[in-house]
Amino acid sequence: MSRVTIQTIADETGLSKFAVSRALSGKSGVSEATRLKVNETAIRLGYRKTASTSRVLGVVFDDNDITNTELHMQIQNGVQREAQLLGYALRIRSTRNGMELEALAEECSGLLIVGLHDEENLRRLHNSGIPIVRNSWLEPLEPVDQVGATDHEAGSAVGRFLLDLGHRTIVYIHGDPRFRGRMERLYGLREVCERAPDVLLHDLILEEGRDFGEAFARLITDIEKPTAFFCAHDGLALAVISELLARGYRIPRDASVVGFGDYSAAQQISPQMTTVKVPGVDIGRMATRVLHQRITNQDFPACPLRLHVPCQIIERQSTGPAPK
Amino acid sequence: MSRVTIQTIADETGLSKFAVSRALSGKSGVSEATRLKVNETAIRLGYRKTASTSRVLGVVFDDNDITNTELHMQIQNGVQREAQLLGYALRIRSTRNGMELEALAEECSGLLIVGLHDEENLRRLHNSGIPIVRNSWLEPLEPVDQVGATDHEAGSAVGRFLLDLGHRTIVYIHGDPRFRGRMERLYGLREVCERAPDVLLHDLILEEGRDFGEAFARLITDIEKPTAFFCAHDGLALAVISELLARGYRIPRDASVVGFGDYSAAQQISPQMTTVKVPGVDIGRMATRVLHQRITNQDFPACPLRLHVPCQIIERQSTGPAPK
Repeated sequence: MSRVTIQTIADETGLSKFAVSRALSGKSGVSEATRLKVNETAIRLGYRKTASTSRVLGVVFDDNDITNTELHMQIQNGVQREAQLLGYALRIRSTRNGMELEALAEECSGLLIVGLHDEENLRRLHNSGIPIVRNSWLEPLEPVDQVGATDHEAGSAVGRFLLDLGHRTIVYIHGDPRFRGRMERLYGLREVCERAPDVLLHDLILEEGRDFGEAFARLITDIEKPTAFFCAHDGLALAVISELLARGYRIPRDASVVGFGDYSAAQQISPQMTTVKVPGVDIGRMATRVLHQRITNQDFPACPLRLHVPCQIIERQSTGPAPK
Repeated sequence: MSRVTIQTIADETGLSKFAVSRALSGKSGVSEATRLKVNETAIRLGYRKTASTSRVLGVVFDDNDITNTELHMQIQNGVQREAQLLGYALRIRSTRNGMELEALAEECSGLLIVGLHDEENLRRLHNSGIPIVRNSWLEPLEPVDQVGATDHEAGSAVGRFLLDLGHRTIVYIHGDPRFRGRMERLYGLREVCERAPDVLLHDLILEEGRDFGEAFARLITDIEKPTAFFCAHDGLALAVISELLARGYRIPRDASVVGFGDYSAAQQISPQMTTVKVPGVDIGRMATRVLHQRITNQDFPACPLRLHVPCQIIERQSTGPAPK
C-alpha cells in the first residue's frame, strides 16, 4: 500500500493540496464543511501528518537582529552538523512573516525558532502541531522546549571575576532591555554584587537610537567613578572601550571592560577584549537533538524542557586589577 | 577469550583486587610503582574499565534532607522507570560518606547526585571519571551536567499569580538559605515585584532551630501588613498557615499563602494549600537519559548541560484576592 499524502487526500476529495493542507492544520481559509470532509477522509485513509515530512528540520531566525549574526551562524552550523548526523534535510529562513513561517512549518517535522518573534506568529507555529524548540524569551513556566546559553551563571561568573580583580564600582551596560538573556546576565551579576556589601552596581539601559556618548558621559560623571563595565554584548563593549579611550582612559589600567558573545570584533579591537564565549555550535547541536527525540522517540519524557549550555569567560587585555 | 576484569589483573599481578581498583582509578593508597605495574598490565591485557560496570547506574541522595523526601522519592521513581526502559540496574544510596560514595562510583557507569554534598566528596566523585549528573548547587559555569526544576521561572510565575490577585505587600519565607533553588525562586519573584512600582517585597531568612513564631511575629508587626506569603517549601507554608491561623487570620480572606513542592501535607492542611508542583519524576527520567547518552553515545555533544523541567502552580484554597 502506498503512503497516504496530502496529494492522496486532494485526489480523493477533489480539493486543492493547499486547501487540504490548511484544513488538516486547522488554519483559516477553508470552510467548516471542507475541514470536516478533509478530516474524515484523512482518518479513513489512515493519513499521518508526519509521514510526508519526517526528515526535514526548519530553522527560523529573527530577520532584524544584526547584533547576533555570528551567534546565529554558529547555531546554524551546529544544527547542520547534527542534522547531517541524524539524517535530516534543513530549511533555513530569516523572517518574521507569519505566512512564510506557516508555510515552513507545513514542510517540516520540527522547527527551531531563534530570536524575537511576534506572539501571534509564535502561536500560529505552536498550533501547527509539530515539535518546536525555542531559543529566546519564554513566559515563566510556559510549556515549551527551550535550548540556550547559561546567562544568569555567566553574569555571576563575570561578577566574581571582576570582584576578584578588586573592582568595587561596576556598571552593567544593558542596551535594549527586551532581550531576556541580557536581563538574566544582569540578575546573575547582581546576585554576586549584592552579597559583597562594599560593591556598587549600576545598570545603564540605553534607548535605541539615542546618542550613546551622551548617556555614557552622564553616567561616568554622575556616579562614583566606575572602574569596571560588563556589557550586554560585544558591540556595546566596543562602544564603551572607544568612548573611554576618547576620554583619555587607559584600558585596563584605569578601567576594565568585559563583553559578551566573543564575536570576531572582540579580537580586532585594541586592547583585545575580555568577553564571554557563547557556545553557539553546541546550542544548535542540542536543539537538534531535542527535536529529534520529540519527532522519533515515543518513550522520550513528554515534559517540556529548558536546556542550557554553559558559557566560558575568555580573558584578554581589556581587564585588569582595579586602580588603587 | 574471557573478559578482562579487575580480578584478572589482580591474578596477573599478584596484588589484591582493592589495590588494583585504587590504582586503576588513580586514587591514593597504592605506591607509584604499583600503579605503574597495574596500568601496564591493564593495557597489555586490553582491560576496559566500563566493561565490568556498563549496565549499572548509581543514585546518591543527601542523607540529611528530610524536607525533600517526597521529591527524592519521585526522582527515584523517575530514574527507576527510565533505567528499566534503557536496561540499567540501579544502586541507590543515601549518604555523605566519602568512602561509601567512592565505592559506589566504582560499581557504576554513571551517577546521579541529588542534594547537598561536601566539595571534597564531589571532587572525589568527579575524579572517578564516570559520567555524573548533579541535581543541586553548581558553581557559576561549572562544567558539569545538571538536571533540575525551573526555580527562577517558578518564582516569577508565583509573583504574577499574586500580583494578579491584587497583592501588593508580599513576603518570601526563605528558610535555610544554603539551597540554591530557594534563592532562585526569590530572584524570580523579585524580578516580577520590582517591575511593579507599588509592590513591596520582604525576604525573611530563618535560621535553623530558631523559634519560627517569634521571627514571624516581628515580621508581620514590623513591616507594612503583608497580605501574601510565598514560602520556600511546603513545610514552611504549613508553619506560616498555622501561625497566621493562631493569630486570628482567616485564610485566604486576610492573607494568601503559597507553598513549594506539592507534597502530601499540602492537601492535608486546611485550607488546602496553593503550591508549586515540582516535576520530580520527569527530573529523574531526564537525568537518566543524560547519563545514558554520556555512557553510550560517542556522538553526543561533549558540552556540559543544564537541563530544567518547568514546574506548575497548583491552585487550591490558601490563596485569594488581596483584602481591600
